[in-house]
Amino acid sequence: MTSSDDAHRVLIFDTTLRDGEQSPGIALNTQEKLEIAQQLARLGVDVIEAGFPITSPGDFEAVQEIARTVEGPVIAALARTHVADIDAAWNAVRDAARPRIHTFISTSDIHIRHQLQTTREDVVGQARAAVAHAKRYVEDVEFSPMDATRADVQFTAEVCRAAIAEGATTINIPDTVGYTMPHEYSSYLERLYELIPELGDVVLSVHCHDDLGLAVANSFAGLLAGARQVECAVNGIGERAGNASLEEIVMLLHTREADVGLHTAIVTREIARTSRLVSRLTGYAVQPNKAIVGRNAFAHESGIHQDGVLKERTTYEIMDATTVGHEANSIVLGKHSGRHALQQALAELGLELSGQALNTAFKRFKAIADKKKVLTAMDLEALVTDELREDVAAYHLEWFDVEASSRRPPHATVGVRTPSGEEVTGSFTGDGPVDAIFRAINAATGADARLREFRVDAVTGGQDALGETSVVLEVGGAGPASEPVVGAGQGVSTDILEAAGRAYVRALSNAMRRRGVMAEAEAATAAAKEPIRTP
Amino acid sequence: MTSSDDAHRVLIFDTTLRDGEQSPGIALNTQEKLEIAQQLARLGVDVIEAGFPITSPGDFEAVQEIARTVEGPVIAALARTHVADIDAAWNAVRDAARPRIHTFISTSDIHIRHQLQTTREDVVGQARAAVAHAKRYVEDVEFSPMDATRADVQFTAEVCRAAIAEGATTINIPDTVGYTMPHEYSSYLERLYELIPELGDVVLSVHCHDDLGLAVANSFAGLLAGARQVECAVNGIGERAGNASLEEIVMLLHTREADVGLHTAIVTREIARTSRLVSRLTGYAVQPNKAIVGRNAFAHESGIHQDGVLKERTTYEIMDATTVGHEANSIVLGKHSGRHALQQALAELGLELSGQALNTAFKRFKAIADKKKVLTAMDLEALVTDELREDVAAYHLEWFDVEASSRRPPHATVGVRTPSGEEVTGSFTGDGPVDAIFRAINAATGADARLREFRVDAVTGGQDALGETSVVLEVGGAGPASEPVVGAGQGVSTDILEAAGRAYVRALSNAMRRRGVMAEAEAATAAAKEPIRTP
Repeated sequence: MTSSDDAHRVLIFDTTLRDGEQSPGIALNTQEKLEIAQQLARLGVDVIEAGFPITSPGDFEAVQEIARTVEGPVIAALARTHVADIDAAWNAVRDAARPRIHTFISTSDIHIRHQLQTTREDVVGQARAAVAHAKRYVEDVEFSPMDATRADVQFTAEVCRAAIAEGATTINIPDTVGYTMPHEYSSYLERLYELIPELGDVVLSVHCHDDLGLAVANSFAGLLAGARQVECAVNGIGERAGNASLEEIVMLLHTREADVGLHTAIVTREIARTSRLVSRLTGYAVQPNKAIVGRNAFAHESGIHQDGVLKERTTYEIMDATTVGHEANSIVLGKHSGRHALQQALAELGLELSGQALNTAFKRFKAIADKKKVLTAMDLEALVTDELREDVAAYHLEWFDVEASSRRPPHATVGVRTPSGEEVTGSFTGDGPVDAIFRAINAATGADARLREFRVDAVTGGQDALGETSVVLEVGGAGPASEPVVGAGQGVSTDILEAAGRAYVRALSNAMRRRGVMAEAEAATAAAKEPIRTP
Repeated sequence: MTSSDDAHRVLIFDTTLRDGEQSPGIALNTQEKLEIAQQLARLGVDVIEAGFPITSPGDFEAVQEIARTVEGPVIAALARTHVADIDAAWNAVRDAARPRIHTFISTSDIHIRHQLQTTREDVVGQARAAVAHAKRYVEDVEFSPMDATRADVQFTAEVCRAAIAEGATTINIPDTVGYTMPHEYSSYLERLYELIPELGDVVLSVHCHDDLGLAVANSFAGLLAGARQVECAVNGIGERAGNASLEEIVMLLHTREADVGLHTAIVTREIARTSRLVSRLTGYAVQPNKAIVGRNAFAHESGIHQDGVLKERTTYEIMDATTVGHEANSIVLGKHSGRHALQQALAELGLELSGQALNTAFKRFKAIADKKKVLTAMDLEALVTDELREDVAAYHLEWFDVEASSRRPPHATVGVRTPSGEEVTGSFTGDGPVDAIFRAINAATGADARLREFRVDAVTGGQDALGETSVVLEVGGAGPASEPVVGAGQGVSTDILEAAGRAYVRALSNAMRRRGVMAEAEAATAAAKEPIRTP
């Protein structure tokens, strides 16, 4: 562990791809997860929790791909205490330069009684056996007593001692349900230090949820009490109200370093871009007033605080927006920019494109540049991310025609290329032009898809802004046995109807692919006695 | 003050309409502010800070209207230490049953030196004179030492003592720049209690900003240190990263009351509706993972935590979603529902409509119900809020025709009724259908408006969901002297292009109205030496 070098160094453990990806409606494919993992490496996180391999073949594949490809951070995989979970986790991360297995079991009586339906003795035994099994594979093993903050501290200490005795190198104390308060959490951790003398020899970690708006404050209280790893997610995504926001805890430590004395290895200038990438690929918007990464987090409303900032920046600013990369928007391309300029601009964004991928991106860039005078770094990011999606989509929107009017119902006709390469057409008269396009796609493909969420954002400002649409839909679920499958997709275009149509066919493709993967996973885990749950 | 009755009662001071309305791009008109204030009264807040009357005639009018109309909460108005500010504040709130004047001046050396450009002695004198002047009008006077958390605590104590000596009944300690940490803030407040023996005789208040993600935690630390008023805003809106979220601090106290022993008078079931109303009228989205009010704050991702919740709710839930009003979505109307059913459904939402307003709402309801099978409470809220806007819009979108295709540039023609009642038409071939509509509206009205932000959300799920669009645009600013004026507008329809067009003409109307108001305000304040700024 790097922390042993420096008692004041805080390790950033990013769980965007594991706890974050568990958010409702998020369904990232392997390529999207890989893109996020690469950006997390550029951001300088210490650990990437890449997924929970036993849960599905798709999750396994994504973790394996990240372990094989992404350089720099430790690559961790989650596992229950079961042998099969730990074997799957190991097989997924074994090719990483620095692999980690993260295993967990609940120590709260409410979980032990109602969910695990077992005894405290059994929990101690399972924790011990799981860590021992993981240690046969790898030196770096993390153990989490799930729902620890609602558990008996004495019993939690007993379980953690067993895990450390078997060789766990990190002990993580999750506030699984987002219930604790800063003073309560730090008292709990201080008590653990008293009860577990050997806790000082391993890394203590915090994992807090934001149900009561305290995830960052609780994580911070944990660090002040001695923890040196924070589990967090970009934009604070995760189960329910999400995890502690990576950007908030990092910038808190950064801004108050002189007073608190803790630091991280995060390259803060990559924060804004990482936030945009995660928001774009997950379809989870960041609200304008979100700390650090919100559009207005550094904006001073005209005529009020602005005067103070003009006289002396520090009158109203405690951080400089450029520190987190908000102003790193200097690249501007136009319709006369060539292939080489595009390649260079993309390289500055950390995106190395060449060959056919560059050709495709260049063609798309030229088409957009004809409509839009200048393209900024944010526009390029959106377009390139859009291209990434294109590679994996099963259906393609080939063309569409829409007539909309306040005087008659809107009508759409679409042409869709199916995964088998054939072009099918469909038309529909709907309640609105977007509705008409979506239903025309259903008509063309024969899919029984229902829209659940739809959102449009402008990528940058201005009249000719690129529109970015997010669609969440569900397919199936009509029969009594079949659960509906959810798919998410995004599309980028200066034309909102085109962007909506592209997002819809991608969401449809993802849902169809997921339905295939889930059918496999269900078959594979049909024998397993209990369902899967996480810290 | 009600707090004197009960040492454990926390007063909720809502600043959504003052600090919240200072967020970039938010420009509420009087009717919208009144609607929010009425809902805040239903929510049971103790104090509504309705605005900052000296800043513009529009702000004055809104505060006055709220003071005259809204029953229940104390109605407060903000004022610098200037006589003119305090006079304006008093004239705006004097008709309220329980008026309050809130006056402030900075105590940090960085503000005194760079922004006020004065001395500590002068600050003490101004604070003393301002409170004394306010007390001539009203018993209930609040004083805030701005930027207190970065100020010398001894000097801040001296200023607060002077304010209390003159009769201030509430002392509020703002963390204006969102810089403090929970342990630091509570130490600061404890030190103030030592330095100001008479602080125990007034209400101590906290006002925290979220720049480092700690607004709620700092506010909570302040309450634990003895404060009994929290200044907060719905959805955490406000300058930069915003204020402490009302819903988070309230539900934190509610959920942990058994351990902390503090309570509020908030009707928690009104929280979700209040959040939706503020989001809709301000155009500020709430991210899906926002604590308490986010769409997914109570969602358990399928197959993972759901199993635990099914076995025993408390395994993963610390709050019931119905407690904050998320499930209060029972009202369902359809195309066969009559006028009386609509009126009853609206009354359940706290919206009393009759006469012409009811007729207009019913006509609109029937038109929508023809396209959309069922209308929920959320749909009704959106429609009625939409009607509110209609009353005040200066331009109206009468009709539109759009042709959009992937094979040729989209073309739009629109008819717009101007404030003078004449119908003008315009057409444009744009980059996308929304762009074409917006530019056709510019062509029809002759307005030089430029789009800054555009967003679309579905009000409820499903294929036939109502789309809600938000537009922020700017007009003017072409000349060297004229600052561009920003206007925001929203529109609701099952047709995204119609919703976009409605939002655009409303944003245009608001910008035009604001340009008129700002011209007046500039003339009025031209003599004032220093610009206006706030805690």
